Amino acid sequence: MHDMFNAKSVAVIGASETKGKIGYDIMKSLLNYYKGEIVPVNPKGGKIHGLPAYTSIKEHGPVDLAVITIPSHIIPATVEECGETGIKNIVVISAGFKEVDEEGAKLENQLVEISKKYGIKLVGPNCLGIMNTYNNMNASFSSDIAHKGKISFMTQSGAIMAAILDYADKKNIGFSRIVSLGNKAVINENDCMKDFMEDENTNVITAYLEGIVDGQGFIEASKKASKKKPVLVIKSGRTSKGSEAVSSHTGTIAGSDSAYEAAFSQCGIIRVNSLDELMDYSSALALSPLPKGNKIAIITNAGGPAIMTTDVAIRKGLELAQLTCETRQTLKDGLPETASVKNPVDVLGDASPERYAFALETILEDPNVDGVIYLVTPQSVTDAEGIAQVAIEHAKKSEKPILCSFFGGTSFEGAEKLLAEEQVPNYLYPKRAVKSMKKLYDYSIIKEQEYPKAPEFNVDKVTVKNIIEDAKEKGMHTLGLESFDILKAYGIPTVGTAITTTVEDTVKAAEEIGYPLVMKIVSPQISHKSDVGGIKLNLNNADEVRAAYEDMMENIPKKEPEATLEGVQLQKMLSGGTEVIIGMVQDPAFGPMLMFGLGGIYVEVLKDVKFAIAPVNDIEAEEMISGIKTHELLEGARGDNPKDVEAILDIILRISKLVTDFPEINEFEINPLMVFDEGEGALAVDMRLMLKEGKSSDLLQPSERSMKLKSSH
Amino acid sequence: MHDMFNAKSVAVIGASETKGKIGYDIMKSLLNYYKGEIVPVNPKGGKIHGLPAYTSIKEHGPVDLAVITIPSHIIPATVEECGETGIKNIVVISAGFKEVDEEGAKLENQLVEISKKYGIKLVGPNCLGIMNTYNNMNASFSSDIAHKGKISFMTQSGAIMAAILDYADKKNIGFSRIVSLGNKAVINENDCMKDFMEDENTNVITAYLEGIVDGQGFIEASKKASKKKPVLVIKSGRTSKGSEAVSSHTGTIAGSDSAYEAAFSQCGIIRVNSLDELMDYSSALALSPLPKGNKIAIITNAGGPAIMTTDVAIRKGLELAQLTCETRQTLKDGLPETASVKNPVDVLGDASPERYAFALETILEDPNVDGVIYLVTPQSVTDAEGIAQVAIEHAKKSEKPILCSFFGGTSFEGAEKLLAEEQVPNYLYPKRAVKSMKKLYDYSIIKEQEYPKAPEFNVDKVTVKNIIEDAKEKGMHTLGLESFDILKAYGIPTVGTAITTTVEDTVKAAEEIGYPLVMKIVSPQISHKSDVGGIKLNLNNADEVRAAYEDMMENIPKKEPEATLEGVQLQKMLSGGTEVIIGMVQDPAFGPMLMFGLGGIYVEVLKDVKFAIAPVNDIEAEEMISGIKTHELLEGARGDNPKDVEAILDIILRISKLVTDFPEINEFEINPLMVFDEGEGALAVDMRLMLKEGKSSDLLQPSERSMKLKSSH
Repeated sequence: MHDMFNAKSVAVIGASETKGKIGYDIMKSLLNYYKGEIVPVNPKGGKIHGLPAYTSIKEHGPVDLAVITIPSHIIPATVEECGETGIKNIVVISAGFKEVDEEGAKLENQLVEISKKYGIKLVGPNCLGIMNTYNNMNASFSSDIAHKGKISFMTQSGAIMAAILDYADKKNIGFSRIVSLGNKAVINENDCMKDFMEDENTNVITAYLEGIVDGQGFIEASKKASKKKPVLVIKSGRTSKGSEAVSSHTGTIAGSDSAYEAAFSQCGIIRVNSLDELMDYSSALALSPLPKGNKIAIITNAGGPAIMTTDVAIRKGLELAQLTCETRQTLKDGLPETASVKNPVDVLGDASPERYAFALETILEDPNVDGVIYLVTPQSVTDAEGIAQVAIEHAKKSEKPILCSFFGGTSFEGAEKLLAEEQVPNYLYPKRAVKSMKKLYDYSIIKEQEYPKAPEFNVDKVTVKNIIEDAKEKGMHTLGLESFDILKAYGIPTVGTAITTTVEDTVKAAEEIGYPLVMKIVSPQISHKSDVGGIKLNLNNADEVRAAYEDMMENIPKKEPEATLEGVQLQKMLSGGTEVIIGMVQDPAFGPMLMFGLGGIYVEVLKDVKFAIAPVNDIEAEEMISGIKTHELLEGARGDNPKDVEAILDIILRISKLVTDFPEINEFEINPLMVFDEGEGALAVDMRLMLKEGKSSDLLQPSERSMKLKSSH
Repeated sequence: MHDMFNAKSVAVIGASETKGKIGYDIMKSLLNYYKGEIVPVNPKGGKIHGLPAYTSIKEHGPVDLAVITIPSHIIPATVEECGETGIKNIVVISAGFKEVDEEGAKLENQLVEISKKYGIKLVGPNCLGIMNTYNNMNASFSSDIAHKGKISFMTQSGAIMAAILDYADKKNIGFSRIVSLGNKAVINENDCMKDFMEDENTNVITAYLEGIVDGQGFIEASKKASKKKPVLVIKSGRTSKGSEAVSSHTGTIAGSDSAYEAAFSQCGIIRVNSLDELMDYSSALALSPLPKGNKIAIITNAGGPAIMTTDVAIRKGLELAQLTCETRQTLKDGLPETASVKNPVDVLGDASPERYAFALETILEDPNVDGVIYLVTPQSVTDAEGIAQVAIEHAKKSEKPILCSFFGGTSFEGAEKLLAEEQVPNYLYPKRAVKSMKKLYDYSIIKEQEYPKAPEFNVDKVTVKNIIEDAKEKGMHTLGLESFDILKAYGIPTVGTAITTTVEDTVKAAEEIGYPLVMKIVSPQISHKSDVGGIKLNLNNADEVRAAYEDMMENIPKKEPEATLEGVQLQKMLSGGTEVIIGMVQDPAFGPMLMFGLGGIYVEVLKDVKFAIAPVNDIEAEEMISGIKTHELLEGARGDNPKDVEAILDIILRISKLVTDFPEINEFEINPLMVFDEGEGALAVDMRLMLKEGKSSDLLQPSERSMKLKSSH
């Protein structure tokens, strides 16, 4: 989108001299600031705002950007004309597309097709437009252009663009590029992410999104972008779950927001929940250096607010720097006797700018201090502007972040203005300065994050393919224990098990699996097996197996004469393991989403699980395991032996591969996976696999899906 | 404190004409607004700010309030003089007391003694003073008096008073009474709570506190106050735990803040963590009616912000009202076709004040709507002031709360000013309006809360007293299983157990307790009993008991020749119960704090426990049980039978009584308490009780403690 934002000529198709028309507003917006060529297009010709109007874009010939404000039904023809003229960048402001009705959706599809044909990058339709403050191009509804700054912003809501611009104007917050995404027919959040990432005037990427077009593409783009610049996203609106019924624990627990939470955390996105946080954090990230660690110092002219600030800092995961003896001695020598020279450093209520300067300089030099919260309250003698000036001077040259909180009202108006003008982050409430500092620290970690590829394994795809196709042919959608071969094909160890139908086969299978064994009756009509003697535990040899089999076949029909006995299932009895669950559900935006948790009450009652979008790499798989609250139980809490976490890790990675290789799997779960002591492995005890319903043509792979989307722009 | 706040005459002892002196500022503060008699007192006499100065307060005679600003060392004599003159209300502004050194602490003690002698209510020392906007009395450092309003505020930090006043001035937030508490030598938060509760000009009580002088008194005062008016408290600063070592799980888990959390929730205090929340919530609570339920409607002129607002509302525990068919039809008839008539109601970007008024009126009439979030974003045609006027008109007459969010900046300055002047709560960000609405709802619940007395039980205090005194005489601080009689005396069922020293006694005890039994060796030197054969499970009759006893006595000495065998402990073997813990630790501010949680990993790993300050009533005890995250496990999760929650409730109440009756108990824990299926009771299996160390004279009961404090003012 480089050419779009750096357009040297902009046509307004639908330009107008009539107040109240969009084509009037857009012309005004451009004329107010833009220095490039402005080309009004209107079939009536004549002059518009003093410029000669062309009756069609063809009459004028190519421009770098066309902004279209004419009624929707004639837009496809106009976009076609633009294409023929060689125009590559278009913003469609007009509404009347898929947001209104079927007819509109058809028009929108035409825009997609035409854009594809000519390779046109099209923003919108149904949007407020775009801005680039660095060439003064305001190709939007908004009459005022944003202040110049280092934040780029994309938004799926025009109203939020309007509100943010109005607010930012008041607070002197600056932007570089702004895109109102509208219906995202062609250009979507992934294109903007890539553009903002490359834009040299952008330090911080921000977004307000209500949905994501191509989840896997979004993850890829965001991983790259967040290594280079902080990415802050508001994801609003509840997404609906896939409509197919869920039948696994994983499906039940995965909430509508789980996939976004997982994806954002996997790709280094700082998720924020409100616009105040978005503005607070992006101001700090745009203007301040990153701290080297999480140890902050607080300078204050009053005790109470410093205590509150300390509380928040600790609650948010920052630490109070332990000042060196040297620092404390210097402060002691230079500050009044009753000042506090421990962190928080209290320079007292009558502190002058000079005293603040002395304390700030001393603290910034302390190697234990990673960042400073500069706290000022209004006391009778406070020279707020002088004290602000001290912060400004030091913020400009310091390699450590200095975030201010001038915590007052009327008497701080001058100081606030000064700090805003000089681009030093200032927050009314200390809490917000602290939370912003925490985000600076968070981003310093994200920046260093590695994203290795998901590991490859030697797996037997053919076997799995055959099992799945076989099931499809039979019209089966749910596969259970009988499909253990799927796990084996992907190198996932399973507990010894067999389903047999004769006494001889049963004894033979028992000998192969080894003792002790459990035997269960297999009958579609019997759900409470133990009530009819359909479960025999602790079978220790062939004789006991034979006796158990014969007992079941003889006695169960007496109790359940209607039941068809299809055979028995043998399974090795396990002892000493810990139950865990590994599952997967398909998310409508991101595709396969994995889940990990401890079994039993931990999943069912505590819902203590961790999600990640597949495919996952080693680091992500490890974070799934260490991310549950009860992970201590795997590390040997309460005198237990540590469990074989390596084995879990390997199985998560293999399942990640399985569900990525076979997108027709709609839901999948190993429950339980028994995990033994460190070095002793893990065994899948039961599994459940649900195939997608519907025709296979509906079942695009995520990669195909994203290709399909990408090919359109 | 009614007389103090309604003083008709105020003396300033230390009044001065010298700028920079506190006695100058206070005189100015009073003279600016106060209409009562102002009496400057200064040993030099003459005239001060045009008023005749008295050389001593005695010279003038009694006043309703004396404000003292002279150096600390001469203050005790001056307070004495005030007392002799008959002055009952004093504010000591001066610092130089317990906050500086030992000498200062002695001076402060003198103030306490003198105040007690004369029945003087003394605010401070070391404070900024007090204000009552309803008689224009600004007896404080702050040169400006607060705007008149319905919020009372007490603060332990003068700087926070200064900052809040400065901020409130800018935002036009009004106060009724303000108290800077200072060192709280005499008047403390409990006195202010009682005063604010009675003050007819106060609708909302707010406080910034760093500590609490008398926890039990605070709970009592707050329970009363919060039934009448919302009470919002910031509790800042980490409290240190009692210095004595803790040795129970309860002691380990109880964090420094647990007692405050528990106490605040028990007495209906709305705890807030920051001053922005304090201002947001108290504005709403001071100005708006309470909603009858948690179902809100949102009116908006833009979709995006409404979606965000909906998200926050649901996250915070509000619900979106389902509008009636009638309402929807009315809206449909009256709004443009593309407007959304489902909640959120979108009146579209070009909405006029009239359209907002129509929608607001319609929605307010809907019986399903409990409150309205009135959301406005700046669009090109938005008449912000007109739309604000609509909110103002309806807020004045509606019985449902209307909270505004004019979500913009520069273009909303006029509307913001209007709303502030007309006292309609308005929040820049919709999130803050929603959170404030939630607090209105929360308070509507708190207001209806009942505080029954803790139930009484017939207990055998004498037995417990004897056991404890006996232990003290022997110098024992920790009592264990051998003190089960304490539980029995308080009607708490215990598992059958006995400690015996001969084979005959053991068999006899076994017959009494009943089988099956477990036998454990009792020996201070043996910690791993099972390693030496010191635990025998599943003893089913007298012969087995005899054999087990003889085996232990014969064989253990061979393995552990140094160990003294003091006997054996018999205990009934239990099966099928669920382990829970009930414990207590002493909190420095609030006294005995109870803890409840499930045993084992739930306490140790998940730290899933609930605290409450004793004595607890039925409701509080029930909330301890239902308040843990894993309480489902007691209700019969995963096909289990429900457990006997009634039995737990009864035992919590009895323990509450025990630890209240015996304040010399420093820590106490039943761990585990085995709880059986519903109706089958619970049995204490083991207990631990630690007595306070030190002389008994240090061990005042909470009630004595508070009496001691109360008697001083």
